[in-house]
Amino acid sequence: MRPEKIGIIGSGLIGRAWAMLFASAGYRVVLYDILPEQVSTALEEIEKELHALEAKSALRGTYSVAQQLSFISGTVELSELVSNAIYLQECIPERIEWKRKLYTDLAAIVGAETIIGSSTSTYMPSLFSEQMTSHRENVLVAHPLNPPYYIPLVEIVPSPWTKPEFVTRTRDLMLEIGQKPVTLTREIEGFITNRIQYAILNEVWRLVADGVVSVADVDRVMTEGLGLRYALLGPLETAHLNADGVADYFQRFGGEVYAVSQTYGPTPKWWQVRRYRRLQPNVRKWCRESS
Amino acid sequence: MRPEKIGIIGSGLIGRAWAMLFASAGYRVVLYDILPEQVSTALEEIEKELHALEAKSALRGTYSVAQQLSFISGTVELSELVSNAIYLQECIPERIEWKRKLYTDLAAIVGAETIIGSSTSTYMPSLFSEQMTSHRENVLVAHPLNPPYYIPLVEIVPSPWTKPEFVTRTRDLMLEIGQKPVTLTREIEGFITNRIQYAILNEVWRLVADGVVSVADVDRVMTEGLGLRYALLGPLETAHLNADGVADYFQRFGGEVYAVSQTYGPTPKWWQVRRYRRLQPNVRKWCRESS
Repeated sequence: MRPEKIGIIGSGLIGRAWAMLFASAGYRVVLYDILPEQVSTALEEIEKELHALEAKSALRGTYSVAQQLSFISGTVELSELVSNAIYLQECIPERIEWKRKLYTDLAAIVGAETIIGSSTSTYMPSLFSEQMTSHRENVLVAHPLNPPYYIPLVEIVPSPWTKPEFVTRTRDLMLEIGQKPVTLTREIEGFITNRIQYAILNEVWRLVADGVVSVADVDRVMTEGLGLRYALLGPLETAHLNADGVADYFQRFGGEVYAVSQTYGPTPKWWQVRRYRRLQPNVRKWCRESS
Repeated sequence: MRPEKIGIIGSGLIGRAWAMLFASAGYRVVLYDILPEQVSTALEEIEKELHALEAKSALRGTYSVAQQLSFISGTVELSELVSNAIYLQECIPERIEWKRKLYTDLAAIVGAETIIGSSTSTYMPSLFSEQMTSHRENVLVAHPLNPPYYIPLVEIVPSPWTKPEFVTRTRDLMLEIGQKPVTLTREIEGFITNRIQYAILNEVWRLVADGVVSVADVDRVMTEGLGLRYALLGPLETAHLNADGVADYFQRFGGEVYAVSQTYGPTPKWWQVRRYRRLQPNVRKWCRESS
């Protein structure tokens, strides 16, 4: 086991996955939640999960299940969790008032060198760190994709006041545990993943709502087509290889890309339209058939 | 070998891939191009390719290399190609005037029951079939993704005058050769794949041009994150599983999806901006490093 201590705040699915990821790299991990039952249940779940991973040869790292388990302990004392931790991974529910309260509490007890990374997919780091009276330069977003044990991407997003050194240190830490970090130079709504996901979702919705394609077929465009490519090649590398370099690609196809883009309809107002209710049975049927 | 004959028009990479796909399912395939050297070179390339596929256990179908090769022949006579073919797959370069000329020629010689599917990724089927004096109901788009031997998706796109039965028949044919067709109910610019690809590309470009993220990191968002998910789950199934069904997803996250979508910048005017030139060395460096 390494001497450095990692604290995990929140014992749900994401918190447990982070605990397992850090333990797989040999870190001493302490898992925090409010109730003792939450913590004990989480530790039991982790034990089951690690054995299941071993059984299917999917256990990460070079340590045995017993070793990895021995690296992980639990607590219901936030101050105990924070003490001497080099890094805290926050995984509490996506409620901004809960996050602001937590980060305000953390400000009073966290060390000057302890980085606090939030797993949030929703809130820019400034939104829950701006009110902190100290150490707000320690806060950033380290957003995993679900399930983090299998999907290596982590988006690292600094607030305007995050100390750049803490960004670098978090990136190195993520690489060390086998994840694949990407770093944003500044915070932006939706970070990168959700900006891309929502651009896809808006167009998928318009095509289905306009009757151009069925629910099952539009999903197949990804699972039988674009997804297979994007699992290997990013959008810019794809463009680069589709022509004599990326500049040539945009020279040759840029007009076409723009022209097609001009035909997108308006952004769907998801909360207004009731049409997505009609989508529900079709998607449910499709999910049943595809699984 | 099956008795039905398939004609392939154009002996480039895509034409050769289609020839191999149809031969793998036992169809009699005739490959057409303008010059005898093009045809003979293509047949030699196919032979090499089939042996290479066999060597890495990636050969499709139940027939041997020798059998599959024996199913494929070549011609430089369009009328010979067309005669008695149940299906023609057109794979000529993406130049609209060439396509219109070819389809005009085909109108005079094609049988009433011969379907003509175009591999085009660029042109809606009405654009090259409207001028045909007969048989324009036989024409549709059957757009593969590159490389078609590995990526099963085929987009089937009818023009306003395509006979619905020919759409169904093409879909069945694609399933028969092991591809995964999706059917559009009507033609639309960019079909589905390019509409989705361009929505991604526009946002990727804005994020890189605005300095939010590097070329390598934005590509990693797909290859280490979203792509791994989309290779297994489509966007609607993902939304469905992210909440208590897709209706619940949009009820809960719809406001957020819309709010983030409102922050997209304007569509990049690719052919105007010179900024993509600055992208070129970065992408080239990235492609070198990642390969």
